[in-house]
Amino acid sequence: MSKKLTQRSQDYSKWYNEIVTKADLAENSGVRGMMVIKPYGYAIWEKMQAELDRMFKETGHENAYFPLLIPKSYFSKEASHVDGFAKECAVVTHYRLKEGENGEGIVVDESAKLEEELIIRPTSETIIWDSYRKWIQSYRDLPLLINQWANVVRWEMRTRLFLRTAEFLWQEGHTAHATKEEAVEEALKMHGVYADFAQNFMAMPVIKGYKSESERFAGALDTYTIEALMQDGKALQAGTSHFLGQNFAKAFDVKYVSNEGKQEYVWATSWGVSTRLMGALIMTHSDDNGLVLPPKLAPIQVAIVPIYKTDEQYEAISARVEEMVKELRAKGISVKYDNRKTHKPGWKFAEYELKGVPTRIAIGPRDLENGTVELARRDTLSKEIVSQEGISDTISNLLEEIQDNLFKKAIDYRNDHITEVNNFDDFKEVLENKGGFISAHWDGTTETEDAIKNQTKATIRCIPLETKEEEGICVFSGKKSNKRVLFAKAY
Amino acid sequence: MSKKLTQRSQDYSKWYNEIVTKADLAENSGVRGMMVIKPYGYAIWEKMQAELDRMFKETGHENAYFPLLIPKSYFSKEASHVDGFAKECAVVTHYRLKEGENGEGIVVDESAKLEEELIIRPTSETIIWDSYRKWIQSYRDLPLLINQWANVVRWEMRTRLFLRTAEFLWQEGHTAHATKEEAVEEALKMHGVYADFAQNFMAMPVIKGYKSESERFAGALDTYTIEALMQDGKALQAGTSHFLGQNFAKAFDVKYVSNEGKQEYVWATSWGVSTRLMGALIMTHSDDNGLVLPPKLAPIQVAIVPIYKTDEQYEAISARVEEMVKELRAKGISVKYDNRKTHKPGWKFAEYELKGVPTRIAIGPRDLENGTVELARRDTLSKEIVSQEGISDTISNLLEEIQDNLFKKAIDYRNDHITEVNNFDDFKEVLENKGGFISAHWDGTTETEDAIKNQTKATIRCIPLETKEEEGICVFSGKKSNKRVLFAKAY
Repeated sequence: MSKKLTQRSQDYSKWYNEIVTKADLAENSGVRGMMVIKPYGYAIWEKMQAELDRMFKETGHENAYFPLLIPKSYFSKEASHVDGFAKECAVVTHYRLKEGENGEGIVVDESAKLEEELIIRPTSETIIWDSYRKWIQSYRDLPLLINQWANVVRWEMRTRLFLRTAEFLWQEGHTAHATKEEAVEEALKMHGVYADFAQNFMAMPVIKGYKSESERFAGALDTYTIEALMQDGKALQAGTSHFLGQNFAKAFDVKYVSNEGKQEYVWATSWGVSTRLMGALIMTHSDDNGLVLPPKLAPIQVAIVPIYKTDEQYEAISARVEEMVKELRAKGISVKYDNRKTHKPGWKFAEYELKGVPTRIAIGPRDLENGTVELARRDTLSKEIVSQEGISDTISNLLEEIQDNLFKKAIDYRNDHITEVNNFDDFKEVLENKGGFISAHWDGTTETEDAIKNQTKATIRCIPLETKEEEGICVFSGKKSNKRVLFAKAY
Repeated sequence: MSKKLTQRSQDYSKWYNEIVTKADLAENSGVRGMMVIKPYGYAIWEKMQAELDRMFKETGHENAYFPLLIPKSYFSKEASHVDGFAKECAVVTHYRLKEGENGEGIVVDESAKLEEELIIRPTSETIIWDSYRKWIQSYRDLPLLINQWANVVRWEMRTRLFLRTAEFLWQEGHTAHATKEEAVEEALKMHGVYADFAQNFMAMPVIKGYKSESERFAGALDTYTIEALMQDGKALQAGTSHFLGQNFAKAFDVKYVSNEGKQEYVWATSWGVSTRLMGALIMTHSDDNGLVLPPKLAPIQVAIVPIYKTDEQYEAISARVEEMVKELRAKGISVKYDNRKTHKPGWKFAEYELKGVPTRIAIGPRDLENGTVELARRDTLSKEIVSQEGISDTISNLLEEIQDNLFKKAIDYRNDHITEVNNFDDFKEVLENKGGFISAHWDGTTETEDAIKNQTKATIRCIPLETKEEEGICVFSGKKSNKRVLFAKAY
């Protein structure tokens, strides 16, 4: 398979699909809309998981596991929730197959029909709150701070690898609190954790805000979001945290006895990020040569390629490299010495470039003589000759520099693509020609939001948390508005 | 809820169910046969996962993720495989719900019927080998060493928490090799990894052997198993590793071009352990007072309980404990300081006993004066007064001692429960009155195996790998046999 990618300027969408498959991240399976996450892609996801899991535990959360299948009746208990998810549910109706009678092969055994259909979880609020009723009696049982790592299924009609798949992997936090204030605080805290993770590990700048009513999670009173900007000017919702009020507590009758002996409904939050973050990561940093990974999430941080003609040279280089590998590993740097004889150095260089390995060392006979190596960095594609001495410090510093540089580059691009507009003509013009976030006044009504969406495909990505009050008029309706919100076309 | 458990001698099965629920490990959900794994139980599973994952990676495996749902047609491609699993499959037939017409609530949308039914994976050979066809072209692509952590569903009719549940969590390794020898070697290597994990982390002795034909995995040419013995004299299959021959390669047309340029079918293995190990862990070590955990898998290795009457005493104790906690954590010991004022020391002692925390420290005003603490160990229930000085070394050594002691106790029990018998009357007598493994001659036929199973409920747990050739006659048929095999009743 050729390693050359379609250029982004030519066809961004095609470029994305090629990078996902050619860099061995994921591929489509034989099941419509469901992907296979390949080992290299999964290794990146594992690094994301490890950091997020650590952050969740540091903020007091524990992991647990709830059933994959949800009885239809549970699912229907919260009205707006079922409205939001019913259209994309995978439904289990039978529990047995059998040999068909007319040699037609294996068929569903109609005698094994479930009395009540089971839904593959699209999200787990209902099955989890059914358990919480048993777990929560008194204020002493609160707060209950639980997270689950799981697969979920949403029968999306149009799917794209990582960005929108019928099955995806995610984590879903589900917490229960004694007071409204504590629940809101929790939702905002996890919103902050997501922003922290996106910026400090993914090197992906995000805008923190909350959703308009029509963009909220089905069953939430408030949805907090982190919104990122991709290189093609489209926004991507990277994580959400929901304040659920008492909706699920009421639907599942979850009450606690307060310190004062009164029966009260519990307050709830839920929050999640998914393998969609893989798509966001790819589209934030990568270039026409392939994937670009921030060092903190790269499964391989430095690849070492030997350059040699004779076996003798190979042995001498390998001996030196083994020492370097030890030194690098001792510093916690993940290193791969690629000594495969089946592939040429040029092929390997292209491979590591395509796979976004942050740094690459090439070492040949002359380097051995001079005590040097050739050190290449993936983000700028530049190379330099550096001393073998102190190589672990050199790499360690360079990895930090690359992490910082990627974030800086991304935030510069993002900041250049937030445009204030004050009338609908400018709105459409900027949306079509420049893209990115459009900061505009909005009258606060769903009608206006829908009308703008219908005419332009742009949606309100968020109402930024850090926004200044400002008198203005809605770009669409001309009605009064007191702050700007961010519009964009979105993934 | 009372913390008192039913005694094992009274009702072992009831004791087991109580320990699982009262120690907060798991509980039944509203979905038949599917469990909720509670945070404390999940924390133990996470420790198991971490060790196993490390061992898999050290033996060269990478993780990946394949779809939850398998098209019915894939599932049927390997004949014995579908025979083995068809009777317990959850089947997805529709992908949408809708509002019912007569106010009957939410119903399945019959217009959203799938053309081909999808099966929730009971195991992933078929969907994975469908991918491997695309991944494997040449001998250079081999071996392919992949593992997946996933949930699977098998519609079991009789379920028990952890031991047999309709959904369970597991890992499944799926490897592809150029030669039969390499595949057999891989299957045996992972069999060895499982035995190592069981003995060195779970402190659970296992017998390594292979299965008789009728007990093999559906689609395997050989199934290697590790068999453990529970305290009630019943065996438990704790992990299996399968040599699959070329069955799946042929079913999914997976060929590679050999070094000599010839097209050859690939050789395969698969291997897995599941949350069933939680049940094995519980039943290997626990006692009438509750769970007993081997220190290497205990989420909390030492619990510290302050004993005080006045706030002043509490402050002084806490100050000292904070130092001890730091010292213990620096040594990598996981410690919980339980300073809850809502519960009395006696309640906490009972709690940690029930939850199997390996060691417990109590510290009161007199201890502060004397520079001592009271140190209790869960396995022997003994206590002693030890010096605060060097507490981290004291605990560290004690944890090792407990780990060793648990293994020793379990292996003594196991060895006492392997009984050689030479006729069928003795066979039945030992099975009924003593239990455990019965080492007996068997004529090697499935007919005899079935007949013994029908008459006694005992099955051949394994043909031990380390067994000596020995002339004898089958306990049931009287036919010739050249080695003993192990029978037992089993979970």
